[in-house]
This record gives sequence, C-alpha cells and structure tokens, in this order.
Amino acid sequence: MTHRLEPLLNPKSIAFVGASDKEGRIGGMPISLITRYGYEGKVFPVNPKYQEVFGLPCYADIESLPQPVDLAVLAIAAADVLAMLERCHAVGVKSAIVYAAGFAEEGEAGSALQKEIELFAESSGMVVAGPNCMGFANLNTQAHTAFASVFNTSSMQQGSGHVSLLTQSGNVCAAVYGLLRQLDVPVSHFINTGNEACVEFSEYLEYLAEDSHTEVVVGYIEQLRNGPRFLSACKTMSERDKMLIALKAGTTAKGAAAVQSHTSALAGDRRVYQAVFEQANVIEATDFAQMALLAQLARLRHRTAGRRVAVITMSGALGAILADRFIDAGLDLPDLPADVQAVLRKGIPDYGMVGNPVDVTGNVVNDPGFVHEVLAVLASTDALDAVVIYAPGYMLDRMADSIAAVATEYPRFMAAIDTGKASTRDTLRDAGVAVFDDLGRAVSALGPFLLWQERRQHAVLPSTAKTGADSAGSPAALAADSSVFSASATVTETQALAYLARFGVPVKDICSAGSMDEALTHAAALGYPVVLKIVSPDIAHKTEVGGVVLNVRTESELEQKYRDMMAGIAQLAPDARLEGVLVQKMETGGVELIVGARRDPVFGPMLTVGLGGVLTELYQDVQHSLLPVDADRVQALLRELIAFPLLDGYRNTPVADLAAACDAIVAVGDAMLAAPKSVEEVEVNPLLVRRKGDGAVALDALIVTGK
Amino acid sequence: MTHRLEPLLNPKSIAFVGASDKEGRIGGMPISLITRYGYEGKVFPVNPKYQEVFGLPCYADIESLPQPVDLAVLAIAAADVLAMLERCHAVGVKSAIVYAAGFAEEGEAGSALQKEIELFAESSGMVVAGPNCMGFANLNTQAHTAFASVFNTSSMQQGSGHVSLLTQSGNVCAAVYGLLRQLDVPVSHFINTGNEACVEFSEYLEYLAEDSHTEVVVGYIEQLRNGPRFLSACKTMSERDKMLIALKAGTTAKGAAAVQSHTSALAGDRRVYQAVFEQANVIEATDFAQMALLAQLARLRHRTAGRRVAVITMSGALGAILADRFIDAGLDLPDLPADVQAVLRKGIPDYGMVGNPVDVTGNVVNDPGFVHEVLAVLASTDALDAVVIYAPGYMLDRMADSIAAVATEYPRFMAAIDTGKASTRDTLRDAGVAVFDDLGRAVSALGPFLLWQERRQHAVLPSTAKTGADSAGSPAALAADSSVFSASATVTETQALAYLARFGVPVKDICSAGSMDEALTHAAALGYPVVLKIVSPDIAHKTEVGGVVLNVRTESELEQKYRDMMAGIAQLAPDARLEGVLVQKMETGGVELIVGARRDPVFGPMLTVGLGGVLTELYQDVQHSLLPVDADRVQALLRELIAFPLLDGYRNTPVADLAAACDAIVAVGDAMLAAPKSVEEVEVNPLLVRRKGDGAVALDALIVTGK
Repeated sequence: MTHRLEPLLNPKSIAFVGASDKEGRIGGMPISLITRYGYEGKVFPVNPKYQEVFGLPCYADIESLPQPVDLAVLAIAAADVLAMLERCHAVGVKSAIVYAAGFAEEGEAGSALQKEIELFAESSGMVVAGPNCMGFANLNTQAHTAFASVFNTSSMQQGSGHVSLLTQSGNVCAAVYGLLRQLDVPVSHFINTGNEACVEFSEYLEYLAEDSHTEVVVGYIEQLRNGPRFLSACKTMSERDKMLIALKAGTTAKGAAAVQSHTSALAGDRRVYQAVFEQANVIEATDFAQMALLAQLARLRHRTAGRRVAVITMSGALGAILADRFIDAGLDLPDLPADVQAVLRKGIPDYGMVGNPVDVTGNVVNDPGFVHEVLAVLASTDALDAVVIYAPGYMLDRMADSIAAVATEYPRFMAAIDTGKASTRDTLRDAGVAVFDDLGRAVSALGPFLLWQERRQHAVLPSTAKTGADSAGSPAALAADSSVFSASATVTETQALAYLARFGVPVKDICSAGSMDEALTHAAALGYPVVLKIVSPDIAHKTEVGGVVLNVRTESELEQKYRDMMAGIAQLAPDARLEGVLVQKMETGGVELIVGARRDPVFGPMLTVGLGGVLTELYQDVQHSLLPVDADRVQALLRELIAFPLLDGYRNTPVADLAAACDAIVAVGDAMLAAPKSVEEVEVNPLLVRRKGDGAVALDALIVTGK
Repeated sequence: MTHRLEPLLNPKSIAFVGASDKEGRIGGMPISLITRYGYEGKVFPVNPKYQEVFGLPCYADIESLPQPVDLAVLAIAAADVLAMLERCHAVGVKSAIVYAAGFAEEGEAGSALQKEIELFAESSGMVVAGPNCMGFANLNTQAHTAFASVFNTSSMQQGSGHVSLLTQSGNVCAAVYGLLRQLDVPVSHFINTGNEACVEFSEYLEYLAEDSHTEVVVGYIEQLRNGPRFLSACKTMSERDKMLIALKAGTTAKGAAAVQSHTSALAGDRRVYQAVFEQANVIEATDFAQMALLAQLARLRHRTAGRRVAVITMSGALGAILADRFIDAGLDLPDLPADVQAVLRKGIPDYGMVGNPVDVTGNVVNDPGFVHEVLAVLASTDALDAVVIYAPGYMLDRMADSIAAVATEYPRFMAAIDTGKASTRDTLRDAGVAVFDDLGRAVSALGPFLLWQERRQHAVLPSTAKTGADSAGSPAALAADSSVFSASATVTETQALAYLARFGVPVKDICSAGSMDEALTHAAALGYPVVLKIVSPDIAHKTEVGGVVLNVRTESELEQKYRDMMAGIAQLAPDARLEGVLVQKMETGGVELIVGARRDPVFGPMLTVGLGGVLTELYQDVQHSLLPVDADRVQALLRELIAFPLLDGYRNTPVADLAAACDAIVAVGDAMLAAPKSVEEVEVNPLLVRRKGDGAVALDALIVTGK
C-alpha cells in the first residue's frame, strides 16, 4: 500500500503557487533548482503576474492547471493559506507544503489560524506539510521544493542517495545537508517539518522507514508529538536494518526554554528521551559534524561490530590517548588473548606493545606481510568486535594494501585514523574501511556507532510499546475494582498497597488501627519494634506532617509517639480526615530502592528505578524504561545503577535478593499498565530488598491520580 | 640570569654527530632542515665518512670542531652515547640531544645505561635531553634538530611564533604541530622530552614560562616527575599571563597501562591531576584538534571574558542546541537583564527571542545599524562575559562589519561560528573575533577557554605549593612530639585523635578504659547511649574484627556488648595487643564527611573531602586540593560536592555548621603538613558536622605510617 505521504515526498507533479522568476525569492529558488537538475515530473508555476518562469509556462491560478497535481507548494502569506488549500483541494491537489510563518509560533491568533488548517486537512484528507517550513527535496528524483541557499552553495549530487534528513528546523536541515555534501554522502530526502500542524515527525519517519531509498535517517528533534508512533517507526527502522541518528534539543533547562520560546514545543525530560533512544536503538548525537560522520559510517553497518575494540598504533602515546578516549566513550579495549599476543610478538620488538592498545612500532610498517598477519588475527579473533588503526600519513600509506586486503577478507569493522595526509584514503574506503582525519571526531563517531552495532543484536523495545498506553498486556481484571481511584482525591497508603499486592508486589502485613489501643494490640502481635503511619485521604506526604514514626520499641514508646503524632497532625493538617494509623513491623538491614511508574506525556507508561533514600535526587542515580518490562530487563536496569554493588555483596554486605526485587518491580509496572487513565503515578518507596532468599517488600506506596 | 636550558633550546652553534647526507636518515633530516630555513648560527656535521653534508664541511670527529658548540645532536646508537657525551663535554659542548632508543623503556639493561647518562650529566653539569626523543626545533631561529617528517609535509612558518610544544611523545609533538600549521598558528619551540633522564618536563616548562617568545604552551603529559617544580612553573606562567594547555594520557586504567608499558611511566591518579590542573589553571584538553584551536584562541586572551555567555543566532533551533552544548561544557547562559532585552525587542520581531539565546531572526541581519546596537549592548552589559554569534555563511557576511566594529570598540571576548562559507572570516579575525567553522569544535575550545579566563582572575595555587611537601607553614612545634609515629606500626585511634586535636581538630571527649568496669564508669559520666571502640596498635581496621559497637543504650547492654567484642576479637585477631576500649558519647543527626590528607607521589600533600558513608566510594563524590588550604578554599571544595545540599538545609533538614566544618578540615590539612615524612595519610572518617552553631567533631581518625 502506498503511504499517505507519497504525493508529498515523491511527487510526480508539482505546482508552485506564488511563483517568482527571481532566483533569490522563496517563490523562485525551488523552481530554479527543479528546472536545473533534471526532475522528470511536471512543474507548474502559478502566478498571474508572469507568463513564464525559468522557461516554464506560468499559470494564472491553480484552477488553470491542465491536470491535477500531487503537490502544491504555497509561497504565499499566512492569511491566504487556508483559502488556497481549499482551492487546491477542489482541483484535486493531493498534498501541499506551506512555507508561511505566522502560525502557532506567533501566539494566539496564529494558533487559531493553524487550527483551521489542521481541521481542513483532517476533513479533506489532504496532506499539508508545515506551516513555517523551508520546503523539501527528494534528491533521488531532484524534486526540489525548498528555498534553501545550501543547494546553491553545495555541489549537487549526481545519482541516488540513501541518507534522509528529517528535522524540526529548516536551518538545521540545511546545515547538516551542507556537511553531508562535504563528505560526499549522497542524500535521499531533505525534510524539515515546520510547525507540524497536520504531519508530525513520526509520520515522516514511518514513511522513511518504509522508503526503499532511505537507509539512514538524520533527525533533529525538539519535541515528539506522538511517542507510540515514533517507537513503532523506530521498530520498523530496526527490522529493516536502518539507522536513526538524532540530535535532541532542549536537553538543558536553558535549551528547553529556547525550544519552547521559538516554537512553543515542550522539550520533555532529557533522561526519558535518552532512555527511549537507547531502547529504540536511536543514536543520540550532539553536533552536526558528528551526525554527518555517523551518516557516512552507516554504509559500513553490515560489517560485524560491537564495543570491543583493538587499537593499533605506531606510538605508545597515541595508543594511550586513544585508549582513554574510547573508554570514555563507553567502548572496551579487552586484553588480547595469549595466542593473539604470541602472533604479534613474533614481529613486534620488545619496546612495542602486544596488549591492547597494540604498538607495532614504526619499523613494522615496512613489513606488509607481517602487518597483514597482525591485522588478520585481530580481524578474526572472537575476543574483538572492531579494529582501529591510528597511523599518520605515510605510515598509513605503507600499511594501506595490507589493511585493505584484510578488510576484504574479513567482515569485521575496521577504521583508520590519519592525522597526516595519507594518499591511500580512497583505497581504504573502497575496501570498506572507515577513514577519519581527526582523533576527537573519530571517537565521537565510532563510540556511538559501535554501541549501536552492539545494541541492534538484541532489540529491547517492549513488544507492546507500539500501542503505548493502550497496551496493558497485564490482567486488566486485576484492576477492575478501581473505584478507589476516583472516589477520593488521594489514594491512601493502605489502598495503594492493597492494589499493588493484587499484581504480586509483596507488601508487609498491614494492620490498620482506628485507635491507640488497637495499635497497641497490633504491635504486640507483630512484635516490636514497629512503625506507625497515619492514614488519611487528605495527606499525601505523611512525613511532612510528622505522620511517620520509625523504630517504636516499646508499648510506652508507642503510646507517647501515637499521642505526639496526633497532636502534630492536628496542628499541621487540622482539616485532614483521619482514618487511623497503620502499624507495621520495623524492618532493618537490606537495601532500599525507589520504584516509580508514571505516564510520560510523550511515550506513555515509563518505569523509574533507583537507590532509595535522601541521596536519590542529588545523585540522580536512576534508570528509566518504557513499560512493560520483564525481570531480565529490570535486572539490566538495576545493573546500570552506580549503586548496584550495594545489591551485590558490596564490602562484605549480604548479597540481596535480586530476583525478588526484579519480580516486585515488574509487578509495579504491571499495576501501572492495568490502572485506569486517571492514575498518573504509582510509586513504591522504599522497596526493601532483603538478603538473598528472603525476598523484597514494599514498605510504602503512593498512587497519584489526576483531576 | 640565563636559564640552564638556553644552550639546548636556543643554541647559537650545533654539531650533528652521526651526520648523514641523506635527507631520509635521522642524521640527515635535521641538517637538511637547518640549512634550508635560514638558521644564523654555526652548524657542524660530524661523521668521518663524509667531507661535506648538505653543502657544509663535515668533521671527522667532535674533537676536530673549530670551536666549542652550544649543542651536540647525537644520531648514534645507544651503546655509544655515554662515551660520546664524555668526549663532547671534554671539548666544551654545553648540551646534547640523544635520539637513541634502547634505554629505560627497554628493561633493565637499558635502565642501567640510562642511569649512567644521568650520573654523567649530574657530575659534569652538561644538559642532556632525551634519550629516546625526536629532537627539537626553535622556529624563531630555525634551529632544527628534529627528525620529524611533519616539517616537510607542513608549510614552514615565516617569522616568529608564540606557541611552544612541550610533549612527552615525539609523535604527539608532530601531530599537534601539523594541526597548528594548518591553522596558521606560529610556533616558537618544538620540544619532545623522551625518557627525561636528565631534563624533565617541568624544567622545560620553567624555561618556556620565562622565554620571551612563548605565550602559550601546548603540553602532552604521561607522567610528571617533579610536581612541585611543575606547580612553580605554572605559577610563573600565570604571573606572566601565559596559557598552558595539556593533554594528560593514562586517565583510564587501560590508558595508564599503555603509558606504563611504553615508557614505564606511572600515569598517576586522574582525579588528582584534574584537581591540580584546575588549581594551577592548566587547561586540560582531550584531543589534538581541540589543543590547536585553544592555542589559536590564546591570542585573544587579553579580551575580557568569563563563563557568562550570550548566544546570538538567526534560528531558535540553533540557539537551543548551542545553549545545551555550552551548558554541558560548564558555561552559563544568564537571562539578559530587562533593559538589555528592551533594546533588543526594539528591532527583533515577536517570533524572535530576546532572552538568551537570542534569536534576532533572519531579517535583522539586513539592518547593520540594529545589529551593531544589539552587539554593543551585549558587549557592554555587566551581566555577560562573552558573546557568541552563530550565523551560517552569507548571514554572517551581512553582519560582519557590525561585529568587527563592536569587537574594536569593546574589549569583551566575541566569537563567531560559521557552518557555511562566510567570506568575511579574515575581517572578523583581524578585528579580534574568534571564528569557528564547526559547532562541536567551537564548544570544545570555547568551554575550557572561557573557564580559564574566569579562573585566572583569582589564583588558587596555595602560596606554599612551590615547595610542596617541604612547606609546612603550620607550627611544626605542634608536631614535635611525633615519636608516636615511629614507635609502633599502627597509630592507635587515641593517638591519632590526640595528634589532630593539637592542630585544632575538634574531637569528642575520649575516655580510655582498661576494663569493663572503667568503661561503665565512663559511660555513666558521659551519659548513654555510647560507642565502644577497641584500642590496639595491631588493629587498623576496627570494624572488620567487630571492634566498633554503636548505640550502646544501657549498662546491661554495655556489659553484653563489651564481652561480645572481646570474644570476637580473641577469635578474629588473637595476637593483637589490646590497650583497652574507647568510650564516646553516641552522636546522632548531623552530616558525616570524610576528610583525608595524603602524600601524592607527584604533588605532595593533598586534601580529599567528600560525603561520608558507604556511598562515598561508589559515587566518587569527592574533591581534591593541594595543601595547605584555608577555610575559603575548603568551603569552595565542599560546595563542589554533589551532596553539598545536605550541608545546606536540603529538604528542610537543619543547615549544618559549615564554618566549623571548614575550620576542622583546614586543621586536618595542617596536621598532615606538620607530620613527619613517615606519615603517609591522615584521615578523619567521619567528621560529623552538626547543625549551625553546634560545631563539627572528628568521631574517628586514622594515621597511616610508612615502613
């Protein structure tokens, strides 16, 4: 089936409404481009002022066109857009690009105007791109609809391209296009989405994921408007072995404010985007040159690769520097196995290094046979995933034939860094070797690229992520009795724990006491020391009103603390409806985790896990994941925590019950997925993880409901 | 007074021993260079095989030279070096460069050979550079002594240079030189130090700090062999307004292993080097291109600058991206003051941004008068330190005259990023504006440069750092009675606390008890709950043998715990000499810090402060500083801790007694400085910081002495 965006992104006929005969005008530049570079479709300039534009007959109005067109490009003012769209639709135009600014990015009146276009597009079924965009280009058909001077300042590519640009900014699109052309990377689509009134980022991505030309998408994202669709498109990308490289703007508060100020987009939570990108195997880039290099590297993605790199140099110093940088970039430099070292040592003198980094020493470059032997063993050992050679200029030239030969014989990923001026760069590139001219840029591209290669070997997007919040693979019946979530503004701890328990979250014996005497009875039954907690639908943050007392050791202490608590609450929360106190047996030892599940406004239900306690917020040692999760996924998340050793027998402390913790956390996620939409957040804090074999238990829980 | 290295680094006459007439040989290349580029001193090739070399008469031996020379370059085998040095010395040669490898980097025999050269240099007073180095170049006099092909592959500079290279690797020296030449940055000295048998990094740095040509030093460091001399040279650099840019190799375990493997250098502790670099205002670089850009930027160091940056773009997206990157790089983008915004708003349309980043919008570039007004107000407001303009190609060209004019009128640092191909880059550079062609590189250079500018406004090297471990500005008398440090292998806690108390470290009442009865008496006097700790010169880690019991609440509990402790120790440390137990009043609440002072093998006494507790090691939330420190410095260190809010009233906890904590930490440092050399480490863990006004107190102390 043809994608809805086909007439927009691969038009067979184009009308330019508001055409100009001046190359420098936005109504002229795309016509100039499209007539120069061999577009084979039909082009119809429209403007009553002209008879002819760039050698083409110009039409007085859209109604005069001899045929319906796939695409109308509107180079007209914002106020005239809606009427023109209606006229276009009336004569069978299938899609339109709206250049004009003056819509949602400019306050209320503009937003109203944009809303009208949205409604028109929806009712008519017409595909409307923009407004406030720079236009597109399909470089495979030379269908130019963009007023971007970069097409004049860069050399135009010949032949077909496989890298598509998809950006939420025309300027970024142009900047990265210029860099791609400098690297001679051939481009497929040049797309900048503007205000996304009717077509948003993920729909374009969906098209590109299915587009036969596109193998790599270079994206710029300020705000995703449809998280589930984005994830679904990412999944298609992965399935078709395509790569998505994305720069996310607004990752700092200041950047987010700038994003919001210029398009009223909401940048969202950096950590959430990072977690999602990692799960969807999207490469997160930080600058344009890096994006272009990654796009260039992508053509080598069919070579086998991963994080374990061997570094070969002619200098111990350069080896040390590269080791530092690659490790900083998240890669590994494993020690070479003894048999590999033995091969290397046959020809590398004592003052060279046969570990990793390998210093073959300057003399060795003159022995191509031995260089070939060294590279062949590195390209074939199971202990490695990639080989990087750093050799300046003539040193690289002397080894180039051997490198090219090994790259041809073995499928392993190989790269060369030449800070000199080697004459053999093209030879190497032709053999499938990546070549860089700068250390820092090499690392900034190789790091994310090799990690991407590793991750794609095991997809981590949850199978139901496609439908996001609507998924809930968990037994919805468990949540059926959810009247509790609407009956009161605040769900009490008792209710929250009871709800979680239904999904298998282990909770402690909960004894509700309506009076001090009842509390004493419960405490005696549970055994001291105990914990007392107030129960009230009006008190969400119990600690702040003195509503939690830990380590109550005796009857008399209980009496005293109970009275103190009630007196304190009477003063601090005089209007709160009190439903008694909760008595729990005091737990000591173990490791406290915080487990939260909430609805991300973009991506739907997300899980957060971290070390509990006062330091959680300061150290930000938390991990996020899309829901649902399984126990393996949760364990992987926990292992990413800096504090993970605390669960793993750190400093002779007991090893914690990791399996029980994982099961409990999976259950919290399930409870969130099954909860009605009014539930915004489910939090267990702390989840106490006892020593191995003794399980885990939710000591407190909070469920936050929306208005 | 002339520096000892003058004959080596600025020679008036040079002999090349082992001269060759072949350009490609190491004995030929430097003679080829020196004869080509106008060196005005005397050059004497020495080799019995030739009559003439590169047009110069060649001498049969060093004894045949018509005059004593400043420098002899030895292009001869390792085994022949010592004898030749002796012959050189005999005929009045003042300094020598030894190319040969085969010394300390090649095991024991080589180390012995190197030691002989060291001893000869010491006794003779001759200055010997290397061995295992590539030779030098003084580009101001064209005194070439290096066999580095980069001098043939790069264009040779004309005229004098101000950037000196000082590296512990010939390959790195060559690589960075090539990049500097590409940027047309003129070089003064090309120095690579080799094995540093007789002249080490810091002595070269000392020379360059005083050298009238050198304004910038680009360093590559694997290991510093003389920390105090390095700090002293850094101080001179600062005083003379010079900049040191350094790449430190071996910052990861793998990199450190590579460093050690190739030159047997010890890479040292990354965090210590980072702390020292920050205190000495050394810019730590991570790659060569960044180093070259920083060296290029240095010529603008006289412009006023600091961390508060205004970013100007024609695109909200580019502004957002730059904001993210600059903030990630440690810079600030302050909101612009209302009066500045008012000036901007006069000409920037509503859809532009007048906060920071500023989006002047594309139309504004056509109004040079307004651009000038915008830039002038940004260049003069007190709220900023630097102005960065991001405009591609023609957009920058249209503003260039205004930018250049403002850069001429105001001393504030200004930079432009042009990802297009602006024709006005030279105009801007001539006006003192930094120009970059890439976003990532611009940030990687501007971040460290602007922070360097800020730091140099307040020197932070301790005034006595010059003499390092020998300083001890503290009252040595206090430490006079230090017999305790040698009398026994382990200093007991009692002794350690008593020693620290003499320097003003607040300690709790210490009651030593020789028996359970005495312990009961002390506890009664102090008041329960108390802490019991074993005292033994044979037990350094009390916790591991059950030698610490916290929170003893009653007499009967004390009796029980006392017996348990003794029984446990009898089993776990049966041979330990026991000197009784320490009884302290149990403290609760407050914030626990860890305070350590130890002798760094390179830099001498260093202080470490961090949050106490089990997480210290995992989160590595610690700060290091050279000693001595004052209270202001300590407070600055504490404020750098991620956990600092815990001391500052985090989440309604009491504000801690920061002043008392700082005083106590200063005193720990003083105690370390006054301690005899046998003391390797002084640690207070924890230092309990009570609420404001209630002081701080050392609850435990450890003093580690060497063998």
